[in-house]
Amino acid sequence: MHTAPTIITLDQLAARLHALAATDLSRPQDRSRILATLADKLDAARDTILATASEETALTIDELIPEFTRTTATLRLFATRTLSDTTFRTHHDPAPQSPATSIGPPHDLLSRLMPLGLVAVFGASNFPLAYGVCGGDTASAFAAGCPVIIKEHPAHPRAGQLLASLAHDANTPLLYLRDTAPNNAAANALIDHPLVRAIGFTGSTAAGLAIDARARTRMSPLARPDPIPVFAEMGSCNVIVIRAHALRTRFEQITRDLANSLLTRHGQQCTAPGVIICEELADTCNADAFYTAFAQILAQSPPRRMLAPNVATNFHNALTQTLTLPGIFAHTPLATDSQRTAHITPPLAIRAAWNTFDHNTAWQELFGPAVLITGGSLPALLANPRLFPPSLTATLIADPSDHDEHWQPLIARAAAAAGRVIFNGVPTGVRVSEAMNHTGSAPACNAPHTTAVGPRAIERWCRPVTFQNASEPRDK
Amino acid sequence: MHTAPTIITLDQLAARLHALAATDLSRPQDRSRILATLADKLDAARDTILATASEETALTIDELIPEFTRTTATLRLFATRTLSDTTFRTHHDPAPQSPATSIGPPHDLLSRLMPLGLVAVFGASNFPLAYGVCGGDTASAFAAGCPVIIKEHPAHPRAGQLLASLAHDANTPLLYLRDTAPNNAAANALIDHPLVRAIGFTGSTAAGLAIDARARTRMSPLARPDPIPVFAEMGSCNVIVIRAHALRTRFEQITRDLANSLLTRHGQQCTAPGVIICEELADTCNADAFYTAFAQILAQSPPRRMLAPNVATNFHNALTQTLTLPGIFAHTPLATDSQRTAHITPPLAIRAAWNTFDHNTAWQELFGPAVLITGGSLPALLANPRLFPPSLTATLIADPSDHDEHWQPLIARAAAAAGRVIFNGVPTGVRVSEAMNHTGSAPACNAPHTTAVGPRAIERWCRPVTFQNASEPRDK
Repeated sequence: MHTAPTIITLDQLAARLHALAATDLSRPQDRSRILATLADKLDAARDTILATASEETALTIDELIPEFTRTTATLRLFATRTLSDTTFRTHHDPAPQSPATSIGPPHDLLSRLMPLGLVAVFGASNFPLAYGVCGGDTASAFAAGCPVIIKEHPAHPRAGQLLASLAHDANTPLLYLRDTAPNNAAANALIDHPLVRAIGFTGSTAAGLAIDARARTRMSPLARPDPIPVFAEMGSCNVIVIRAHALRTRFEQITRDLANSLLTRHGQQCTAPGVIICEELADTCNADAFYTAFAQILAQSPPRRMLAPNVATNFHNALTQTLTLPGIFAHTPLATDSQRTAHITPPLAIRAAWNTFDHNTAWQELFGPAVLITGGSLPALLANPRLFPPSLTATLIADPSDHDEHWQPLIARAAAAAGRVIFNGVPTGVRVSEAMNHTGSAPACNAPHTTAVGPRAIERWCRPVTFQNASEPRDK
Repeated sequence: MHTAPTIITLDQLAARLHALAATDLSRPQDRSRILATLADKLDAARDTILATASEETALTIDELIPEFTRTTATLRLFATRTLSDTTFRTHHDPAPQSPATSIGPPHDLLSRLMPLGLVAVFGASNFPLAYGVCGGDTASAFAAGCPVIIKEHPAHPRAGQLLASLAHDANTPLLYLRDTAPNNAAANALIDHPLVRAIGFTGSTAAGLAIDARARTRMSPLARPDPIPVFAEMGSCNVIVIRAHALRTRFEQITRDLANSLLTRHGQQCTAPGVIICEELADTCNADAFYTAFAQILAQSPPRRMLAPNVATNFHNALTQTLTLPGIFAHTPLATDSQRTAHITPPLAIRAAWNTFDHNTAWQELFGPAVLITGGSLPALLANPRLFPPSLTATLIADPSDHDEHWQPLIARAAAAAGRVIFNGVPTGVRVSEAMNHTGSAPACNAPHTTAVGPRAIERWCRPVTFQNASEPRDK
């Protein structure tokens, strides 16, 4: 099938996109085979993939192994799901035997999710595999019946090109666009191209909103409005509330679990803890005790290089802004100048008063290894309308004796803001299954009705179409 | 429950919206009872409703009866659907017995669609019942668990207020905002209000896009971005392609059915025929014959008053624009000056060359009783990239002997543009059922992944939330 290379440059885009968009993915068994073959190719190159991604991103092999496993398992899960009518929400309402039972005319109706067409995927900096060239967006697009063009991520071009070459070997309908031109030329060319019918994006809020705005107002070559959907997973401030009884009975476990949640991948996860709030009773200093213990764990963890220079710069800038907020009264040691020059940073805990969180900036995502620790009474927490911010997750740690009159209101507030509410766990760690929802209210995500993880992610690349009287062909 | 009146003015909005938004609709049986009671109240006032709506809109009682039946049947259908977990896509993935079978951490996950909160409904001019105060948007919002505020439609305030008073009698969580202030003040107040969490709109493309843009960029009182979803069903140019063999064998039936489809409700339906294309073979003048026969049927149908003065004005303006297109070479008699002054117009057939449809204006919606009739060979049709335009429907009339090599490409083109593809039928007439899809690709609708009709309309007013480890409460 493939003779032309999968990795292309911007000036090859127009010539190559037509053939890609014309790929026939209408047969379920073809889509399934593509997904399964791709998983096999990745497995065969596992060690090279892990080593390449680790070198480029400074993530450890141990951190990348679960991501690799999840990536291939997702491809294989979708290889089965693409065979099922349920995935495409197929529904047939035959013409009723008795027309009077029909609401409206007694038509025969058959509805199905239909693929949108070519999908452009803008992968994430922080998950070079699970949100990369052969990650969840690509897998779900293939499962939906959509070919894919990838915009190269500048943080890991070697891993990206390795994955693209494996996708080439697996004969997948995928192109990989090198991103070497200045001024977002590659990104804009994809957003504007009339054959691109949807976009998947994982990254910063500013970039996600800019892509969405451009896609929403684009015109076709026919001078018709031609908006296309963008599914953007953007910044998230993941809040954890620890109730007083739970903290008293499980102090060490909770502290250690949340520290590990932050330290894994050096805090560079969209679900990493952002703000930890300890419930205070009349006689407690829970936030102080928690901060002290948390800081001690972080002190055992060496400074690490961040994913990419721009990630380090953005983290430093956001951190600087946060540290100027009123009510920040302690923090663990910051990066030294020489560390900063090398894009290295230590993990950070920042102690803040509850009234710091009257400022929107206190709720911004610090994409990196930093968490704010604060405390307050439940009435004080619930009185702050900024709790919870729009986010991917909200975590509630509580024992049954914490289930007082504030408990249900707290859950309701969490569920109104987050895509996933976690009880007695940590926000990091995403199970890939039907009931997973990886999204959040806007602007954490621009499409809160969809998920980026799990089989329902396939629905993003589709729209429903009803065929009326299609199953009753008229006789001659 | 209700003592305060349901019909409010703009200066009462702030005071009344808080109580409305706080309505507890979490119990399925409450939602179901509200919907069923409302249907009963409407049934009891059936004759008054029909008479009032008919007087205001100039639609006949016979035209309004099926709409009335559909409205109450939809309320009762949703009264049962709101009781079902399936409606809310509830899914439980328990923690797997063997953690190794989990993709990612073996969490217990429970997902469910959760209501967004207060919904503002901007009803349609043309369906005072099915898309009015107690229409499909309101019914689906109640079923989702969302209270509703209605913006009065200026085309039928008496019908609207009658329905609002019946909703009051039925104790429904609904307010009706009178629209008497200038400069869209009522609409803008609703779009901007922080308690309004979603908007349903049915009407013109210009108004729909303006509402969407405003809702997308709004800020909360906390100075945070606070975009809310708008579900806008806007203009649609419904295209009908009649294949040559079908036209030859069923000429009279097809002509009569399509004329009736246009004439019902005087063409003021979002699914009314817009462009009828007759396939031409080497030796046919099908479009001429069709136009002649169609015009003869229209000539039997008297001029009628349109829904509202602004509908008549917009129709006249769009029509004037269309008639200046090159290749328009015949049309049936236009409204006289005195008819126009009285907002009366005769039904119109307009004969156009196929190359007229190289212009975008030829595909604009003429919201009113006018249809363009044209013809061309299938290769000529398929060579025009503007076929099919984004629309609610595309209709294909064909006999089995028309199923040549152009047939599947024609179906694919129709399905890529329309929300519903109709075989051997007419675009008007919407069955309310699970498999119905009342939407179209953008910009006919701004949310092509959703439907405004049928039980899946309930999903619009929800977002998915996953509860992790919620079903395994920790012991003390």
